[in-house]
Amino acid sequence: MNVNAIGDIETPALILDHAKLAANIVRMAARADELGVALRPHLKTPKSAPVAQMLADAGANGFCVSTLREAEYFFAADHHDLFYCVPFAPAKMPRASALIAKGCALTLMTDSLEGAKACIAAAEACNNDKPVPFALEVDVDGYRSGADMAGLELIEAARAFDRSTATSFAGIMSYGGASYGCTPAGAAALAERHVEALASVETRLAEADLVCPMVSFGSTPAILHARQLPGVTETRCGIFMFQDLFQAGIGAARIDDIALSVLSTVIACQPSHNRLVIDAGGLALSKDRSTAGHAFDAGYGVACDVGSGRPIGDLIVSEVSQELGLVTSKSGAVVDMDHFRVGTQLRILPNHADMTAAAHDRYHVIGRDSSAIIVWRRTNGW
Amino acid sequence: MNVNAIGDIETPALILDHAKLAANIVRMAARADELGVALRPHLKTPKSAPVAQMLADAGANGFCVSTLREAEYFFAADHHDLFYCVPFAPAKMPRASALIAKGCALTLMTDSLEGAKACIAAAEACNNDKPVPFALEVDVDGYRSGADMAGLELIEAARAFDRSTATSFAGIMSYGGASYGCTPAGAAALAERHVEALASVETRLAEADLVCPMVSFGSTPAILHARQLPGVTETRCGIFMFQDLFQAGIGAARIDDIALSVLSTVIACQPSHNRLVIDAGGLALSKDRSTAGHAFDAGYGVACDVGSGRPIGDLIVSEVSQELGLVTSKSGAVVDMDHFRVGTQLRILPNHADMTAAAHDRYHVIGRDSSAIIVWRRTNGW
Repeated sequence: MNVNAIGDIETPALILDHAKLAANIVRMAARADELGVALRPHLKTPKSAPVAQMLADAGANGFCVSTLREAEYFFAADHHDLFYCVPFAPAKMPRASALIAKGCALTLMTDSLEGAKACIAAAEACNNDKPVPFALEVDVDGYRSGADMAGLELIEAARAFDRSTATSFAGIMSYGGASYGCTPAGAAALAERHVEALASVETRLAEADLVCPMVSFGSTPAILHARQLPGVTETRCGIFMFQDLFQAGIGAARIDDIALSVLSTVIACQPSHNRLVIDAGGLALSKDRSTAGHAFDAGYGVACDVGSGRPIGDLIVSEVSQELGLVTSKSGAVVDMDHFRVGTQLRILPNHADMTAAAHDRYHVIGRDSSAIIVWRRTNGW
Repeated sequence: MNVNAIGDIETPALILDHAKLAANIVRMAARADELGVALRPHLKTPKSAPVAQMLADAGANGFCVSTLREAEYFFAADHHDLFYCVPFAPAKMPRASALIAKGCALTLMTDSLEGAKACIAAAEACNNDKPVPFALEVDVDGYRSGADMAGLELIEAARAFDRSTATSFAGIMSYGGASYGCTPAGAAALAERHVEALASVETRLAEADLVCPMVSFGSTPAILHARQLPGVTETRCGIFMFQDLFQAGIGAARIDDIALSVLSTVIACQPSHNRLVIDAGGLALSKDRSTAGHAFDAGYGVACDVGSGRPIGDLIVSEVSQELGLVTSKSGAVVDMDHFRVGTQLRILPNHADMTAAAHDRYHVIGRDSSAIIVWRRTNGW
């Protein structure tokens, strides 16, 4: 599977820069140390065992997953402490339960008394020897899922998990997803609000004799910019590993930090339209348009030189269909067709690395000490 | 792999309604008959052999593919007449050539003299016994790839393919992708322009003693609305099989024609935000937002009842993250939480069926005469 040069890789294909990935991991591990919290990275970003191993080697304390397929795959790769931090669909309990029976320290999550009751009933039906640990999500800013932080329901749900012999209460979490729309200062303020909210919920749970082993808070920008995280036991973050144009646009990364790109080939040159056509379209790049509201709207990605990985002028992928991308200059500068003949490779930086990686079943890993390009597999689907 | 009831399917998952698929195929086959042209459906939509077989049984004359993986997969499933109708990257020639050597009637495509020269050199390097057939794409309305239709380059490229012993000239094609932004009347007018353009190119090629066995024109809306297609030998179209909200929005389908949906589960209810959270997000639904400019902007999809497959009020998926979708009422009507408890399944109609299907490795096929739900595999990637 290994190839010796980027030129030998069939396009479209994912390129992962090992040196940048390693530097991003070191930076986040240092950040977690500085904040004095454990780092629980999210494996929905890489979906690949060698990346999990790099994170573990850098001191990660367990991982997050977003699908049961990820949980099964990473458990098989000897990563046992996993937090499936998406509200749990009770019908998935037999699969989760089977993992726990095999020795996986899998924690599940829900965000309401109703959800807790349904999950407890599902856990009871599985007749596991071990209780299924459940955390509860707190809604701090209405961003996504999560229980009303001031209401009684959260306390009742925690008590229900604690009382059932089929489950245990693992703690609380919140997700600072709104930090993706923040300046660095805004992300720091958001982190502060979440820390306060989690502390107040923890206090109320303690008053009800319910202990929170886990107080989990996440989002890459919030962790990067937080001043401190008192009371938080672990941070969840994923995109920091690969970074992307969206993170660069909100000041959470530099363009040079972006470790993931899509290798593509010029398949048509259209001087009369001042554009190139490449063989990476909506599938290979994803249709994520999250940079649309940014100062630099990158379309569907930024076109880079294949060797240096650096942007070429202001060339972006401005349009995509399923397997085609149109590369144009943002300012309308003349594209020198002599530099981009049919067959030329280009690397495209992604808007949102998680979404872009999702259509691909492997990474081509460059930038290691050894010059050989190696292949790392991904586990997609559910 | 088969299950007896939708309730037994783990979510998120693709549901394919066999009866609607069959009706959509019959309708398009009748339309091609009416126009007196051969039907060459695009398999980039289903990426599944049983769907190709249904199309073949309905009289399809060969197929289009958009990746070499599709070509290899469908050739292995005994579909031999394949048109890879994306401008060809010369480095892919060994794989294409290997298929042709095995007996696949694979036609490739490019859109310039430069592209033709690069493809001819690549074909010569493969030393095939059989010449590699190449078609040329004509740019009629600047929508995507394609050669300037009035220029000399197209004639020279055709002559180059004709003269090389490693290649042959297969004919011409155009893609009416701009029809996706048209009213039905606009799509009919577009088809007319393409027919005239193709005829004029064919005439100029004939004057240069170059014969066009294939005059190929495509796009679902253009075929559906064209008044006639004189001179066109075959039509290319894909999305008609599954249909989607985008096609419904431009009048090329009815909501009831949509054969594809994503089965999801309610994993959180948030009365205070008047919304539901489901376990189908940007991966399971895709981040395609092609209905954004329509009279009914469907967000990331329309929420339907799991049994009937019919929309529930004006509930749409208004926001997504990787594995989560937020379901809200477009008009802000109160969502009756009692009808959507945690664990309730919902079916989501897709904006763009091709993109939505891409993250899934299988279809759960319902609506056949027999009541059992069967699984059809897809072939993703490149």
